[in-house]
Amino acid sequence: METMTSNTPTTTSVISSKDLLTHWQAHRGLTRRVIEAFPEKELFEFSIGGMRPFAKIIMELLAIGAPGVKEIAEGTVQQLNEDLEQADTKEKILALWDEATATIDQYWAQIPDQRFQEKIMAFGQYEGTVQSTVLYYIDNEIHHRGQGYVYLRALGIEPPFFWQR
Amino acid sequence: METMTSNTPTTTSVISSKDLLTHWQAHRGLTRRVIEAFPEKELFEFSIGGMRPFAKIIMELLAIGAPGVKEIAEGTVQQLNEDLEQADTKEKILALWDEATATIDQYWAQIPDQRFQEKIMAFGQYEGTVQSTVLYYIDNEIHHRGQGYVYLRALGIEPPFFWQR
Repeated sequence: METMTSNTPTTTSVISSKDLLTHWQAHRGLTRRVIEAFPEKELFEFSIGGMRPFAKIIMELLAIGAPGVKEIAEGTVQQLNEDLEQADTKEKILALWDEATATIDQYWAQIPDQRFQEKIMAFGQYEGTVQSTVLYYIDNEIHHRGQGYVYLRALGIEPPFFWQR
Repeated sequence: METMTSNTPTTTSVISSKDLLTHWQAHRGLTRRVIEAFPEKELFEFSIGGMRPFAKIIMELLAIGAPGVKEIAEGTVQQLNEDLEQADTKEKILALWDEATATIDQYWAQIPDQRFQEKIMAFGQYEGTVQSTVLYYIDNEIHHRGQGYVYLRALGIEPPFFWQR
């Protein structure tokens, strides 16, 4: 990535790369269970207040997670692609989710610890460090999944426990 | 805290204590703007699907954030107290929020880096390390704030941008 600079951290750190990956994949496991909790039709159609159906939200998360980690690992610029064409059933979405899980593990292993404080430009446009960018991806998933919880409650469906990872 | 053990990290870490505090306080600033975006009445009364009104959710976050950090810093066991009595207006809730912001900064400064991998029992009952516990507090805030975004959209109110910290 062209904006990447070598930037050695000056402070001791408290969360390891392994901690952060474990944390994210545990969240991704919970998000998978939230997808599963939606009835097929409502996954693609139900919404509140003009917001996107949960399937659309998941396509955003799929467009960010694995491509985002691949971009960091390889230093290439990825395009954001939220095209739903390839995923018009819950089963297909879950398959894409599982594929992304493996891709994230694969490319994460290629990011050396010392790169986490490096400045990058995610998807060619979002400035941050590797660590702040990854935290953003995780937070964005939690944020949108929280919306999915409200959709499920509004549909009278009990969502998975938030603390169960 | 009685269950605390000394547990030296065996891996290099990638997020500093300062990164993590900055990250959390930036999220807390966004949560404050979400509170502000609610009309007074709806803050205390509006809900979807039998979930709590946003004021109740905020009282949970207030019960966790500053007391949780104080507990980690001092090694004392805190009680979860979500009593709304002291905060029956938006103004009072915002004042409690700002007080918590200062308390978190104050006690965070008393947590040495090497403690973040220590095992603790948060609020006497939730097992984790210091870092996993703090991440849980942050994630819990993002999760519930995401619910607040849906409430605002359902009320026809544009929420603050998620990426604006």
